[in-house]
Amino acid sequence: MENFDFHVTTDIRFGKDRLAELPEVLNQYGKKVLIVYGGGSIKKIGLYDKVMEQLKTNGNEVFELAGVEPNPRVETVRRGAEICRKENVDVILAVGGGSTIDCAKVVAAATKFEGDAWDLVLQRRKYQGGALPLVTILTLAATGSEMNSGAVISNLATHQKLGTGSKSMLPKVSFLDPQNTFSVNKYQTAAGSADIMSHLIENYFKRTEGTDVQDSVSEGLMRSVIKNCPIALKYPDDYDARANLMWASTLALNGLTGSGKPGAWSCHPMEHELSAFYDITHGVGLAILTPRWMEYALNDETVDKFASFAWNVWNVEEKVPMLAARIGIQKLYDYFKTCGIPMTLPEVGINEEKFDEMAKQAIDHSTIKTDAFVPLDEAAVKEIFTACLTESSFE
Amino acid sequence: MENFDFHVTTDIRFGKDRLAELPEVLNQYGKKVLIVYGGGSIKKIGLYDKVMEQLKTNGNEVFELAGVEPNPRVETVRRGAEICRKENVDVILAVGGGSTIDCAKVVAAATKFEGDAWDLVLQRRKYQGGALPLVTILTLAATGSEMNSGAVISNLATHQKLGTGSKSMLPKVSFLDPQNTFSVNKYQTAAGSADIMSHLIENYFKRTEGTDVQDSVSEGLMRSVIKNCPIALKYPDDYDARANLMWASTLALNGLTGSGKPGAWSCHPMEHELSAFYDITHGVGLAILTPRWMEYALNDETVDKFASFAWNVWNVEEKVPMLAARIGIQKLYDYFKTCGIPMTLPEVGINEEKFDEMAKQAIDHSTIKTDAFVPLDEAAVKEIFTACLTESSFE
Repeated sequence: MENFDFHVTTDIRFGKDRLAELPEVLNQYGKKVLIVYGGGSIKKIGLYDKVMEQLKTNGNEVFELAGVEPNPRVETVRRGAEICRKENVDVILAVGGGSTIDCAKVVAAATKFEGDAWDLVLQRRKYQGGALPLVTILTLAATGSEMNSGAVISNLATHQKLGTGSKSMLPKVSFLDPQNTFSVNKYQTAAGSADIMSHLIENYFKRTEGTDVQDSVSEGLMRSVIKNCPIALKYPDDYDARANLMWASTLALNGLTGSGKPGAWSCHPMEHELSAFYDITHGVGLAILTPRWMEYALNDETVDKFASFAWNVWNVEEKVPMLAARIGIQKLYDYFKTCGIPMTLPEVGINEEKFDEMAKQAIDHSTIKTDAFVPLDEAAVKEIFTACLTESSFE
Repeated sequence: MENFDFHVTTDIRFGKDRLAELPEVLNQYGKKVLIVYGGGSIKKIGLYDKVMEQLKTNGNEVFELAGVEPNPRVETVRRGAEICRKENVDVILAVGGGSTIDCAKVVAAATKFEGDAWDLVLQRRKYQGGALPLVTILTLAATGSEMNSGAVISNLATHQKLGTGSKSMLPKVSFLDPQNTFSVNKYQTAAGSADIMSHLIENYFKRTEGTDVQDSVSEGLMRSVIKNCPIALKYPDDYDARANLMWASTLALNGLTGSGKPGAWSCHPMEHELSAFYDITHGVGLAILTPRWMEYALNDETVDKFASFAWNVWNVEEKVPMLAARIGIQKLYDYFKTCGIPMTLPEVGINEEKFDEMAKQAIDHSTIKTDAFVPLDEAAVKEIFTACLTESSFE
């Protein structure tokens, strides 16, 4: 296990009907609030009205940044920061999923940043400056953004989708009411769960030895997702299924499973290129890539980790490590399929045309060539992309 | 899953050789430091000198509260609070295991409390007042006190050992260097691991349904302890084994496995009476009680949870739930025995003489009669105590 810091100060308010606590939370920071949200689903489910009622009664002055995209764009960040500066906003309230929260984080920082918002994103994890305080109300179990300091922003003009973040972007308070995810449709529920699984898998498959705590926590969270996603797909209003997915999404990426295990993630850098070039749903891209990446990464040196994944996550009974490993990969693939996720790139409108360009950028924008579980060069990325063109079988 | 808050702001500095960070941490609060420690083992391992060197170079004015007992006593708390008030101490530095940290927490609060320290303890979890800032350097993987707001204090005069706590008692920063546990002897290593296991088991066996995330995280942490404690017993300097035990101890009781699962713990209230009357090692008392409590609590209504414990924690292959449950309990019992823990009360100097009195107090000092996984009355507690008089077999 490597040295690490764990300091995650977000105040989580988990559970049913806790919006009455919102005014007291916001009043710590001031009365001028920028509410950030996406395409309007929060209006459909009545959440927007409930929030606005609390803000009105509380005497807040409210500004709005609406229409945050599923892969939030730097133009939207710029627009939000402009409002915050012009109106002297005191606190940002993000109401939505990971995209909305990510956008709000970078708005919060860009407001304090002298320079263009994209230059802030280009600092990646090195931004040390301040940010406006951020409060979130989560409506989708997926990215874990509600309890971490990272954000991903897209620049369609340059075909770039880049991770950024700073201590100052960590949400102060996050409201996690599973009821707010009852209306999430099957596709987004499955894609969100695939995103959670991917975060756990990315942290699980690292080179650091002796991390039983992190890995067994990851295994447990994976088992929770595997059990509860199908329940939520069948019974969208099942509170406990939604609650388990929501809390798993938060814990999957709040540092718990990655601390003490340095090294690059493998599938996210590849997926970021798919959605930077084709604007596909992030979780779907990850679901398509992950089993093919696993097949690429499985070899005599890595087999033990893949066998553990098969035994401890999927209860595979096969005792021969290499055979067990392959069964585990197959189970993951089949699971995603059963959840209704399209499992080939052509199904989401992607063909081989830009594989070279995307593979090059995946290497340029990350450290997977040196720091990944199994180092990946351009040829490897292209090989993995190519394997995603057709249905696969791993056993 | 029930509603819960999760807000654990302790800044964890995990890993090797990080004491150079100590001055900067302490300087946030001031120069006058009360260093709190136990029986001198920190001097034997050279940690005391290393800490003092940092404090000296940093120009700290240092006061000492030495000799904190394994079950810290209210008299020691009073002594510490008196020093803090008289010397206007700015920050408390606890160097030791859970007892030392618990004592330091209540010293920190008692300094700000108008009244006797025992009256503060008697407020249990209701104390809302302030406390001096607390920084900890952990030397024993066991109680989890390094990242939570609770403390247990004993009053030998009244035969009381009571839990207390408040938000203000949460450590600000905790240094977790596994190397500081290399010298922990076999007995204390095993007892500490039993304490970790007990925290996980207490949170696991609750009545709340639909808590897969919490439970699967608990299962993972239990598996980590079960794997790593025997390694640490055989190779006391195995860094990864010590690191996994240390991080498991912290996560076992920082809210992660208990949030959303209200209800009383079962074995701790019983054990607190054993150590209040006989001053035995807490973890050993828990190890003795837990399998017997399990046998008492196992019935047709609770069998599913015990079977899950057997399957997911101990990899029991038996498919019949009641049989699997019994095998799981046996495995826990055998595991503690293998770790060298004395598994009967007579071995730690306790006979049936005070069973009635202790059973009565266990009920009086807790809510196990109404809120435990299986409600326990005085007769039940006495039955469990009695089962601890001789070796047991559960299958």
